[in-house]
Amino acid sequence: MPPIAEKDLIDDKGWIATGKIVSKRRLSQAMVDPWTATALSQEHDLVLKTFRLLIADLCQQFKGGHPGGAIGMAAIGVALWKYVMIYAPSQPDFFNRDRFVLSNGHTCLFQYTFLHLTGYRAMTLDQLKSYHSTREDALCPGHPEIEHEGIEVTTGPLGQGVANAVGLAMATKNLAAEFNRPGHEVVNNHTWCMIGDACLQEGVALEAISFAGHLKLNNLTIIYDNNQITCDGSVDLTNSEDVNAKMRASGWDVIDIEDGCFDVDGIVSALNKAKTSPEKPTFVNVRTIIGLGSAVAGDALSHGAAFGDTDVANMKRASGFDPTEFFVIPEPVQEFFAELRPRGDEIVSRWTRTVENYAAAYPELAAEFQSRRRGELPPNWESLIPKTFPEKATATRASSGLVFNPIAQGVKNFMVGTADLSPSVNMIWKDKEDFQHPSLRTQCGINGSYKGRYIHYGIREHAMAAIANGLAAFSPNTIIPVTSSFFMFYLYAAPAVRMGALQHLHVIHAATHDSIGMGEDGPTHQPIELAALYRAMPNLHYIRPGDSEETAGAWLAAIDAKNTPTIISTSRHAVRQLTPKTSRSGVRKGAYVIEEAENADLTIIGVGAELGLAVDVAVELREKLSLRIRVVSFPSHRLFEKQPIEYKRQTLRRGSGLPAVVIEPYAALGWERYADAAICMSTDRFGQSLPGYKAYEYFGFSKEKITQKIQHYLQRRKTGEILPGEFVEMTR
Amino acid sequence: MPPIAEKDLIDDKGWIATGKIVSKRRLSQAMVDPWTATALSQEHDLVLKTFRLLIADLCQQFKGGHPGGAIGMAAIGVALWKYVMIYAPSQPDFFNRDRFVLSNGHTCLFQYTFLHLTGYRAMTLDQLKSYHSTREDALCPGHPEIEHEGIEVTTGPLGQGVANAVGLAMATKNLAAEFNRPGHEVVNNHTWCMIGDACLQEGVALEAISFAGHLKLNNLTIIYDNNQITCDGSVDLTNSEDVNAKMRASGWDVIDIEDGCFDVDGIVSALNKAKTSPEKPTFVNVRTIIGLGSAVAGDALSHGAAFGDTDVANMKRASGFDPTEFFVIPEPVQEFFAELRPRGDEIVSRWTRTVENYAAAYPELAAEFQSRRRGELPPNWESLIPKTFPEKATATRASSGLVFNPIAQGVKNFMVGTADLSPSVNMIWKDKEDFQHPSLRTQCGINGSYKGRYIHYGIREHAMAAIANGLAAFSPNTIIPVTSSFFMFYLYAAPAVRMGALQHLHVIHAATHDSIGMGEDGPTHQPIELAALYRAMPNLHYIRPGDSEETAGAWLAAIDAKNTPTIISTSRHAVRQLTPKTSRSGVRKGAYVIEEAENADLTIIGVGAELGLAVDVAVELREKLSLRIRVVSFPSHRLFEKQPIEYKRQTLRRGSGLPAVVIEPYAALGWERYADAAICMSTDRFGQSLPGYKAYEYFGFSKEKITQKIQHYLQRRKTGEILPGEFVEMTR
Repeated sequence: MPPIAEKDLIDDKGWIATGKIVSKRRLSQAMVDPWTATALSQEHDLVLKTFRLLIADLCQQFKGGHPGGAIGMAAIGVALWKYVMIYAPSQPDFFNRDRFVLSNGHTCLFQYTFLHLTGYRAMTLDQLKSYHSTREDALCPGHPEIEHEGIEVTTGPLGQGVANAVGLAMATKNLAAEFNRPGHEVVNNHTWCMIGDACLQEGVALEAISFAGHLKLNNLTIIYDNNQITCDGSVDLTNSEDVNAKMRASGWDVIDIEDGCFDVDGIVSALNKAKTSPEKPTFVNVRTIIGLGSAVAGDALSHGAAFGDTDVANMKRASGFDPTEFFVIPEPVQEFFAELRPRGDEIVSRWTRTVENYAAAYPELAAEFQSRRRGELPPNWESLIPKTFPEKATATRASSGLVFNPIAQGVKNFMVGTADLSPSVNMIWKDKEDFQHPSLRTQCGINGSYKGRYIHYGIREHAMAAIANGLAAFSPNTIIPVTSSFFMFYLYAAPAVRMGALQHLHVIHAATHDSIGMGEDGPTHQPIELAALYRAMPNLHYIRPGDSEETAGAWLAAIDAKNTPTIISTSRHAVRQLTPKTSRSGVRKGAYVIEEAENADLTIIGVGAELGLAVDVAVELREKLSLRIRVVSFPSHRLFEKQPIEYKRQTLRRGSGLPAVVIEPYAALGWERYADAAICMSTDRFGQSLPGYKAYEYFGFSKEKITQKIQHYLQRRKTGEILPGEFVEMTR
Repeated sequence: MPPIAEKDLIDDKGWIATGKIVSKRRLSQAMVDPWTATALSQEHDLVLKTFRLLIADLCQQFKGGHPGGAIGMAAIGVALWKYVMIYAPSQPDFFNRDRFVLSNGHTCLFQYTFLHLTGYRAMTLDQLKSYHSTREDALCPGHPEIEHEGIEVTTGPLGQGVANAVGLAMATKNLAAEFNRPGHEVVNNHTWCMIGDACLQEGVALEAISFAGHLKLNNLTIIYDNNQITCDGSVDLTNSEDVNAKMRASGWDVIDIEDGCFDVDGIVSALNKAKTSPEKPTFVNVRTIIGLGSAVAGDALSHGAAFGDTDVANMKRASGFDPTEFFVIPEPVQEFFAELRPRGDEIVSRWTRTVENYAAAYPELAAEFQSRRRGELPPNWESLIPKTFPEKATATRASSGLVFNPIAQGVKNFMVGTADLSPSVNMIWKDKEDFQHPSLRTQCGINGSYKGRYIHYGIREHAMAAIANGLAAFSPNTIIPVTSSFFMFYLYAAPAVRMGALQHLHVIHAATHDSIGMGEDGPTHQPIELAALYRAMPNLHYIRPGDSEETAGAWLAAIDAKNTPTIISTSRHAVRQLTPKTSRSGVRKGAYVIEEAENADLTIIGVGAELGLAVDVAVELREKLSLRIRVVSFPSHRLFEKQPIEYKRQTLRRGSGLPAVVIEPYAALGWERYADAAICMSTDRFGQSLPGYKAYEYFGFSKEKITQKIQHYLQRRKTGEILPGEFVEMTR
């Protein structure tokens, strides 16, 4: 008696009860009683049973994990890895492989198990069994991680995988448009993205879906594991929309699969149709049952907990397996997958020949292709940065353009985009072409094609950063994405910026309108506390350059940081040039002395848009109070922390009793390490809507007020009112 | 000659060119040549012209601002404020008023100008002219701000307004279900949300739209200012979807308005239809022309810059106004709006009578209603918190349930929700009822109605927090929303958490699975750097309680903080009880000494889930090294900063040379103010997927390793290897 056949799971009209609530979806008998399914070949039947029992065992061994989704998706996996996807288990990094993204990353056992079955070398049975173990070198973390063989992107935070997949598909389109020639397709891979119900609720996915429809990415397929179950129970609790209609309205083709737990052939045919879609991305809506075959099939209980020994034993009995045996892969199943390694090798050989023929026909282009494949930049890239800059006061966002526009123009690795702030972020270069479906040129007169490298992401900051991660993940440094928006909106994008840092992806974020100098837009746009997040975020460089020369340094550092994303944080308003005090080499050290003093009384730390103000205050303090003042420019905590201790001590002279005051209109949090006091924003309010210069004044960021505050501070230090080691905030 | 009549704006098929790109949308002649429009009454014609010229003047005076959108929306505004919305200019806080949300907040002049015209006392012409001025007490910031008369929520970060509006509409539904009786409707207001093209691209809005459709919020109307223009140009650059079909698929009714610049009557009739929608929210898709009448009409150039003196003068001439006069409101226009103040007063009187009749019929209910209106909690709420807790080790997320579930059950002000983590966040109380459309009870067997106070938000963290802001903004403390999810996912929600803090809204976020103890889910779920954001965020309390008693303190502090949102950050794993060392009153001070020592050698700072570890390390250091150790529990930086300086000095003894080491598996950033060294996570990597206890071990968070590290640290201090004032991170 199969455990699923509890009659109360199906009502008299054939509706399946999911999450203890009757779902609106009607399922065929084959779906709810797997053991009598007829549409299934014996071969597939055994493979599916083996796979599902493997998942059950893998979760049961440490009594934890996510079995239900993976089990429900078994037939999808067979269709993908056995029949549809182009890949090579022995050469996981084969350049033209199909990319597979598991956006519902908690079902990672799905991917791990197929990696094992299809013969990825690293994914031994022993490794597979490391899921939820205490093994420190495990390849089976709770969500897939990019550094492991066969994993394209790290997923887990739901919804982002969809945007990553959009980026991967865009990368293919761009490289294909750039390099393919008639009869010579060196890049033509497909991107497959597996999602669950959750991904269709997350905003980042909805943004990316809308954008992919606009771009007509026919090389992208989303496979929706439609099991109608989330942690809380039935999707009915939270979502009533007609998802197919919504996808069609967003420019996607939709294919329905009714019996997604068994109908391998149907799924294969749907995926093949998706792969040859003439002009749209495809959404394959596959009805499945979470935890199929277990006692909690169709129930949220099967989502995030092992089934228990009894249930697993029952499942094995019902499948004709021995309940006392574990992790069993019968020989026919091994044979079923055995062809995939040699098939993969053959795929790679064929592609290698394609590239050889291509090189014969287009030697220069092929050389460029190979160079891009290796992630190389043209050797002259650094020389494209101006050696000097106009002496006039310049907004550092404009300096950013001066520095980077020539590089963007000349170096095809860069794909530059903005979340609808082209007029503000200065990232447009001469004769730039947009990344668009070619039909938009004739339809709307847009200067764009897939060869274009300027991306109008729309007002979709989160998707922008997550898509950029996908572009970067295609192959290291083959494409280096640059995103741009106001710094404040990198809070919308933060979950994806984080994932870029976590994955060591080379992504550059050009964040403008930082500090309170951005002015009239007011407190909602003034990023008082955001720098603290990015200064704390592992493997991320947050850099605030102070003039054009420092902006050059910021871009140099960002382009050099091949495994680390960078946020270059620039001003809306003009700031004066401080050369020759400032230097690009100094920026790359994170902090450096721009004005030294013998027997100094004070170090003033200036940052970014307020560096000039720090220099002015130093003058004032010297003139009015005859103090000996050093000035340190401090564009980046993280870059500074990477310097040798001697350099750090020379620069800050901490430990000698010399006081240091930092000037920055942000929350002071994080400066305590480098300064004793801060001229900063208070912790009880955000900014104020005023013209930029007036906002500075309003919050006390004028030369005069700061000079007074510092004088007062030094007095209070002297009188002992402030104790040694006590950090002082001086706000409005 | 009207400036818009440049022929190249319209092609021969009548398509209008927007953003220099031909839009796919066809517009009638009346749309593109306002000055010959026929469907317009003379009265409306003059009002619309006056309004548009006011906007042009307001931007021109300081040569900046956002004129285009506001001008395009003129007829919508007339329909709303003159004919449709229920409000009282003389009593802006009238409880049962319709709520209006300007999600496209940069068009704030739209709202400010109607507030002025309809007679809101504070919004004098002089104040109206403060837009973009240097006036510090201006009521016209660059985006609307909740603290000013007539503004319901602060908007600006695009998309969030939509979610706020959903929250406001939910508040109405809940209060109506709770308090209305047949013949006695004390709450029945409507929520109107104005959006632009951008809001329809932002994920947070898409999440909220999907959720509102599910909830069948027929008291919510979105008015889409469909001008097909964003900063970058035509929407064609980034969006090709069929928005009406998408809205219908999401459960919304859709009404189209073709001539949205002039057809006041048509808009009024659409809005009235929306208001009486039987069971769905309504999306009114209004075609408009941005910057209508100016030389840059229909172009992105009219979005974010003043038109220039010449253009404004031309507009005036074409409208029959004197180009040498500014801010002109002709008498017929003043008369047109004059009735709205007395009408508003009459509305309030009628409602007051309704409430009086209600009080006569249902005295107890009416008393409760009035108490809720005043934002009062029942006096016994604090007594609902257990005085003591089970002695066994308990996850603080479970403690959170012990503390708060009885309050949620007993105090109807609280509406508690989760982003699909009900099984994990412990926020379910006995016999809780879901907030759902009543039809779901019969259709799906869900125990829910609009009276329900448990909200299944779906996997929509960002919308959850933004909807919570809307619930809180309905009326201060009438509803106090509690959201819940894993702490890591409060990065998805961060932009809305920020807006809650900025607006001084009383929202509580129950964030579980903090620190690395959350384990197997791995680095994508381990919030290494997130605390830094929330410790830096103005007007927010981030609290990490260390045991059940401290969790009680966290909730007490959160419920008492009527103008400040709180994040209560709890553990997935069980931690032992530390009473009587720990105390709820201590938590409310942010930090407090839990183990004192005479002539101490070291202060150890323990935090949240690792507080017990700090106590253990202290024991170890005393026993093994005979050190005199103080232990400070430090759940909240911000609460501590609010204490008097004497208390702070007593607690930390900074300034006396006594070293302090903090133990927390986060980025150390921010602890430098309170400690000299940190046992912390390194800045170059995120967490690791391992069972929780093993993750602690892996990163060196064991009693033994920490003891060694501290010993080593103290030695290095002694030998001078570490200079005074140098902060030391001790990582894996």
